[in-house]
Amino acid sequence: MSKIRNFLFIMADQLRADYLSCYGHKVLHTPHIDGLAARGVRFTRAYVQSGVCGPSRMSYYTGRYPSSHGATWNFIPMPVDEMGLGDYLEAEGRSLHLVGKTHVEPDREGMERLGLDPASDAAALLREGGFRVIARHEGDLPSGKEDYKAYLERQGYEGEDPWLEYANSGRDARGRAASGWLMRNAHLPAAVDEQHSETAYATDEALKFITEQGDQPWALHLSYIKPHWPYIVPAPYHDMYREADTGEILPAQTRDEHPVLKAYRKHDEALSFSRPEVVRHVRPTYMGLIKQIDDHLGRLFTLLEESGRMEDTLIVFCADHGDFLGDRGFGEKELFFEEVQRVPFIVYDPSEQADATRGTTSRRLVEAVDVVPTALEALGVEIPRHRVEGRSLLPLTRKQPVKDWRRFAISELDYTARRARKVLRRSLDDNCRGWMVRSDRWKFVYWDGYRAQLFDMKNDPKELHDLGADPAHAEVREEHQQMLLRWMLSRKSRVAATYKRLDFMTDNLPPGIHIGQW
Amino acid sequence: MSKIRNFLFIMADQLRADYLSCYGHKVLHTPHIDGLAARGVRFTRAYVQSGVCGPSRMSYYTGRYPSSHGATWNFIPMPVDEMGLGDYLEAEGRSLHLVGKTHVEPDREGMERLGLDPASDAAALLREGGFRVIARHEGDLPSGKEDYKAYLERQGYEGEDPWLEYANSGRDARGRAASGWLMRNAHLPAAVDEQHSETAYATDEALKFITEQGDQPWALHLSYIKPHWPYIVPAPYHDMYREADTGEILPAQTRDEHPVLKAYRKHDEALSFSRPEVVRHVRPTYMGLIKQIDDHLGRLFTLLEESGRMEDTLIVFCADHGDFLGDRGFGEKELFFEEVQRVPFIVYDPSEQADATRGTTSRRLVEAVDVVPTALEALGVEIPRHRVEGRSLLPLTRKQPVKDWRRFAISELDYTARRARKVLRRSLDDNCRGWMVRSDRWKFVYWDGYRAQLFDMKNDPKELHDLGADPAHAEVREEHQQMLLRWMLSRKSRVAATYKRLDFMTDNLPPGIHIGQW
Repeated sequence: MSKIRNFLFIMADQLRADYLSCYGHKVLHTPHIDGLAARGVRFTRAYVQSGVCGPSRMSYYTGRYPSSHGATWNFIPMPVDEMGLGDYLEAEGRSLHLVGKTHVEPDREGMERLGLDPASDAAALLREGGFRVIARHEGDLPSGKEDYKAYLERQGYEGEDPWLEYANSGRDARGRAASGWLMRNAHLPAAVDEQHSETAYATDEALKFITEQGDQPWALHLSYIKPHWPYIVPAPYHDMYREADTGEILPAQTRDEHPVLKAYRKHDEALSFSRPEVVRHVRPTYMGLIKQIDDHLGRLFTLLEESGRMEDTLIVFCADHGDFLGDRGFGEKELFFEEVQRVPFIVYDPSEQADATRGTTSRRLVEAVDVVPTALEALGVEIPRHRVEGRSLLPLTRKQPVKDWRRFAISELDYTARRARKVLRRSLDDNCRGWMVRSDRWKFVYWDGYRAQLFDMKNDPKELHDLGADPAHAEVREEHQQMLLRWMLSRKSRVAATYKRLDFMTDNLPPGIHIGQW
Repeated sequence: MSKIRNFLFIMADQLRADYLSCYGHKVLHTPHIDGLAARGVRFTRAYVQSGVCGPSRMSYYTGRYPSSHGATWNFIPMPVDEMGLGDYLEAEGRSLHLVGKTHVEPDREGMERLGLDPASDAAALLREGGFRVIARHEGDLPSGKEDYKAYLERQGYEGEDPWLEYANSGRDARGRAASGWLMRNAHLPAAVDEQHSETAYATDEALKFITEQGDQPWALHLSYIKPHWPYIVPAPYHDMYREADTGEILPAQTRDEHPVLKAYRKHDEALSFSRPEVVRHVRPTYMGLIKQIDDHLGRLFTLLEESGRMEDTLIVFCADHGDFLGDRGFGEKELFFEEVQRVPFIVYDPSEQADATRGTTSRRLVEAVDVVPTALEALGVEIPRHRVEGRSLLPLTRKQPVKDWRRFAISELDYTARRARKVLRRSLDDNCRGWMVRSDRWKFVYWDGYRAQLFDMKNDPKELHDLGADPAHAEVREEHQQMLLRWMLSRKSRVAATYKRLDFMTDNLPPGIHIGQW
């Protein structure tokens, strides 16, 4: 049996499951990702813990739900005592390296309050959520972290902001920069050379890192910033797909619509994406961005194959969430529909024990929080069960007996910082949140202060008929509310006591204390 | 209007509400506490957030429920990013001083992981849960923190452990130490002089502190370690009450008993306290311990009066939980009955606005988590609502219009570290917890993995008839389960973003990011 020594954790940003050929896309072919699926297990019901980058990623990185790690929306930090996969590996003398995006936001106030030495290694790790950074880029933000900007400068791209002016812009008929942030420009080729684009650059950095490690064990998060906004891609990918390739647009169901959904229709992306011509204009570019990632993954997998790394590397391929792309009249993400919450999720387990499952699919409900325990188990590190809320997937890749697999997946949304809150005239004291409970057959959504949503995923897989107010389904809703309650009451907030400590403490008073003796 | 400048937060450990004359005790007279009630508001339905010292106190000190602060049982630390009243005052250039017990357990692993300088002020505060220690004593533990042991030595008490040998022991007929930890010795006078007992010492320290402050504003937690175990008290208090004074013993209801209660009957304290002779033997001593506290509070209130401090000091008097004292065949605490969960709770608000409520009682449901926001509001410090889960009680002392007062109080129990878990053959992965929902009329208890308990507090105030399995009350249980769900889904885990920050973020993308624009 070959021993797993390395972990390659590949994430694409805002990649819908159904935009990969192995997940059924009819036009867009992604042979390299499909090839990984052919050697691993492809999970068809994998859910993220939030349809928003930040909270979803923190769940991927910590193995904990947003209600536990506290980073419930983008740019909201996790408090300083949260721990991620990187931290667990550091405790074992290993590291988790990073190429790409994490959305980790440091809790600067917490660090300052505790008097952490900003120059210390502990502070450096904390700022990065436990990652050791090879190259980090979060998008063209004024954050000062953007290695990709410096990279473009080294390649000779000039200007005040080469990322904006080249990678994120095309050129109009008069040769002026046309911003990719405006969807009307999505058809233009990005002004950057394909070989210098974000996807190419991140792949180069990953290849370099893996090559440099030689036979030393490693763990790497290769986190592509694409196909996330802005929707613009360099040639030749800008011109590979046509409007006619973009398939069905799911209709908006606005009759008796849920109040929160109605409020989301006031968001800019919904206002734009409710126009079919916008959808048809953007989707080909989105497809091009995915095709480009697949091509670069081809380079990566070739290196792994040729260097023997396919024999000792656990690979997870996934996305932080999907994208409405105009379905239901929505753009972006957040809400609890399959386009957003269900993600591509492929686990390649190189061990012989996994040979029987190669190329198979699994309908088990799996979650983003499962990545941390899966990686820890594969690398032989004890799973800190007092913190980690997910489950290792190795029993599934290895066809081991599994009892009590989860009966439902959970996703959460905090819309406190969204326009929808203002539309709904809710205050910061209101609990502006929703929770999805996805069971085998049903999808139930609980909204604080509003009625629930309910979809019969068996008979209505496109989620077109909301049964949230249907009297005939009261019992189903009640049953799912029970699941939500039990789940919520099981959150692991008792993080400062390990199982070992709890076990030692059980029925064991401190010396000198005697309670109940006559 | 006089301005509140000081905060005096008095806590007794394990003091049942009904063992004070102002709460109805027929034999035990507590005129000084009653006197405070006559000048303040006495809350008759005040609940702790856990019937266990550690979690209850952390809720008092942080204004957060155990599920939020994470210290769900004794000796389990709060993680390093939890903040208490002391921390909030420190941020304002003030301090919260301590005399007595807190049960604060430092998260040493967390501090080490973050590389905190143990010699720093931040680390010192963190180790003490935000308190500035004048004198701390947690009981006769081998923790090295015990100022009281040193105090006894200074008073000339000799021996290896003068606390154990004098304050916690009597003398048998042959003059040998007889441990107060053994209840059979409860009738003996403690071998310590009354003036050197824990209660006297703590009061002395508080008097000294308050006197030293002069006209400088201060905040003090005076936290008596009594009437908590061991049940032993110095003369003359050991001999003030008789077995005949000890009143009714509530009977055990063991028919169709709830499984968790049945398991608790295997605990040492239940095995002993199920014997009426033990109860009759211990209760007079418990009463003496309370009488002693009341006498010393008389000294304290006299000082406050004479120094003018009654005019500018907010005073809260409360307990961290009660004591079964043999009622229902149980000893100690933890379970969700009134003897344990309902505590004495008196708020003295010196402002003129509170004149109309002096000497009144309030039936509002109040909770331990309300102390932090009450103190902050009284001292003019903004309540950090992104963390604090309780509500200020000043609108109640000041008869201000109050809308939407809470409809239920919550208490939590984590029995993972208790013998009951082993009796029930549950593992560390099981969620060994229960939650009480106390509404105006009902008390509902949700137990993970077991049926609920339900009591009609109006028609069965002694909680003798468990309706948890009664089909006729299914709707009441359902309604309370809904309350529990909404409460649980409102826990404040998003602690690293203030309301100000959330408000700023709302519908406001970072510069350079444009989502949804055509």
